[in-house]
Amino acid sequence: MQLPRIAPLDASLRPALQAAIDDKTKPPGSLGRLESLAMQIGLIRGETQPVLSRPAMIVFAGDHGVADAGVSAFPADVTAQMVLNFLGGGAAINVFTRLHGMTLEVVDAGVRAPLPAASALVNCRVANGTRNFVDEPAMTPAQAGAAIQVGMARVLHHAQAGTHVIGFGEMGIANTSAAACLMSRLTGLPLAECTGRGTGLDEAGVARKRAVLERALARHAGVTAPLDVLATFGGFEIAAMTGAFLAAAASRMVILVDGFIASAALLVAARIDPAVLQYCVFSHCSHERGHRALLDEFRAEPLLALDLRLGEGTGAALAWPLVASAAAFLREMATFSGAGVSAAAP
Amino acid sequence: MQLPRIAPLDASLRPALQAAIDDKTKPPGSLGRLESLAMQIGLIRGETQPVLSRPAMIVFAGDHGVADAGVSAFPADVTAQMVLNFLGGGAAINVFTRLHGMTLEVVDAGVRAPLPAASALVNCRVANGTRNFVDEPAMTPAQAGAAIQVGMARVLHHAQAGTHVIGFGEMGIANTSAAACLMSRLTGLPLAECTGRGTGLDEAGVARKRAVLERALARHAGVTAPLDVLATFGGFEIAAMTGAFLAAAASRMVILVDGFIASAALLVAARIDPAVLQYCVFSHCSHERGHRALLDEFRAEPLLALDLRLGEGTGAALAWPLVASAAAFLREMATFSGAGVSAAAP
Repeated sequence: MQLPRIAPLDASLRPALQAAIDDKTKPPGSLGRLESLAMQIGLIRGETQPVLSRPAMIVFAGDHGVADAGVSAFPADVTAQMVLNFLGGGAAINVFTRLHGMTLEVVDAGVRAPLPAASALVNCRVANGTRNFVDEPAMTPAQAGAAIQVGMARVLHHAQAGTHVIGFGEMGIANTSAAACLMSRLTGLPLAECTGRGTGLDEAGVARKRAVLERALARHAGVTAPLDVLATFGGFEIAAMTGAFLAAAASRMVILVDGFIASAALLVAARIDPAVLQYCVFSHCSHERGHRALLDEFRAEPLLALDLRLGEGTGAALAWPLVASAAAFLREMATFSGAGVSAAAP
Repeated sequence: MQLPRIAPLDASLRPALQAAIDDKTKPPGSLGRLESLAMQIGLIRGETQPVLSRPAMIVFAGDHGVADAGVSAFPADVTAQMVLNFLGGGAAINVFTRLHGMTLEVVDAGVRAPLPAASALVNCRVANGTRNFVDEPAMTPAQAGAAIQVGMARVLHHAQAGTHVIGFGEMGIANTSAAACLMSRLTGLPLAECTGRGTGLDEAGVARKRAVLERALARHAGVTAPLDVLATFGGFEIAAMTGAFLAAAASRMVILVDGFIASAALLVAARIDPAVLQYCVFSHCSHERGHRALLDEFRAEPLLALDLRLGEGTGAALAWPLVASAAAFLREMATFSGAGVSAAAP
């Protein structure tokens, strides 16, 4: 499989960007985190007046065999039902992308139940859900590769349309279980620190989920290479996101990283090519146990901390107005000299 | 002076709002802080599908006599220069309100230098800046009352135009000094905990500023009633904001509270009528020393923590998309039954 080449950010524009930020009519540093964000956006886009055109959100959906092991508060049918809800415009991600001017695309990367053809649904179904990784690898290596290609292809489609900023969301009942195993195996952190309530398990439910996942990790004890770990524990929507992250960075997009599942997919991508992280803006810290530790793994400080734990890309969509604000102040604010405003006393 | 009557929120709509929030197609509670925000918005507006029409931002400008005591990193002339920058569309608050669809109004509540007549500037000048409160009260009681009326009148203008959500910003060199004195006197907290770097003082500058303010607080040691404290230490823009907060709550608006100065103006309003706080959404925690303690005084958890310390209403404008998102999910998301999505297992 040919993975895209990601260019590390070129730091040579940094002094010009810092000068542009400091010349804006405001006390130096007074826009706080938006100033470092503006710097990152400028470096990614390679310009001091960055325009973030055609903001896009892709939601990848897929089902997980491990859902049959009773690790989720919701039945597996809900994955397909929620895809239909996305197509009907009634889910949270529809509301937020509509409100904040992002294009929304829904991709079936491997939902279990058949879905009707719909103009708003991109059918890239690798298989009818993954296998139960308690018993066997979730995907074959070929399936994992195909799912990665799905994500790469969708991002390239948007790159060709002129998208400069993109977020990735997911829908897949039981995918916090997949993400917990990916995280634990790739970081070495204990499973307990990676396993949370998902869509709303109680304490006993979390204990049962953890026991199931401990068995799965033990069964696949020798699997450690990132792509093998992804194939063994991942889902089609997670593998698609991994490919999407890599392709978005290679396309010099500003990437809005959503919550726990998206971060697990990014973890795989970062183990393949750490340069992907330079293109990432971490939108929020999820309420799901494990996300804070995963953010620490990336040395990331998220923009928002609103106790969200919904997925679908909702945190990324909610952070987009802040990212747009950072680009806009860099582009549009007046300078001290231009506006005739006195600078601070020396 | 006739102050507006604020109705405490009517809690009888709470069960219907909670049912509406829980019936949305998402795991219960998974939108975190946005869910409690949606509840508050619904209670303020008295409906389960709240529409937040005509979002508005009013920036009040005024000059402070205490600026002559060398308490700011910027010269007092910058207040007028920045008002001209607002009128030219080049300041941060212009960029953010434009980007996020808020109407921006600039009100001269008492800038020292003359300002040209401009259609975008509302001239409500009480006087050419306040007096230096190190020597004498900043305002006469009549001036403070007039400035409060300015804020009330501007809010009523927007209420009549159909504004349901409003934020207040300020411009006034040395106004962190005024706010620090207001805060220390009204909360009883030591001045050192209320005094920060403002627009960018170094450690020595902060020490000088604190010494000046200690003298001022000692000179006016007997002043403790909220309106007297406001007249003694406040500014025309701060008093206008106090009136604006009261009028906005009386008009059942959702109020976006900006940073340190806005919170000091709100503190005065809350000492006059604590019900005002029920209408307030705290947009961000400023990097300015004192703001966190002031938020604690209100038992407020702000939406954002981005190390902003610019004022102008910028934090409120940046939080507006989150507030709009909370109202939008309540209004627009599908319900479990309506979308045919299975609920969680019992």
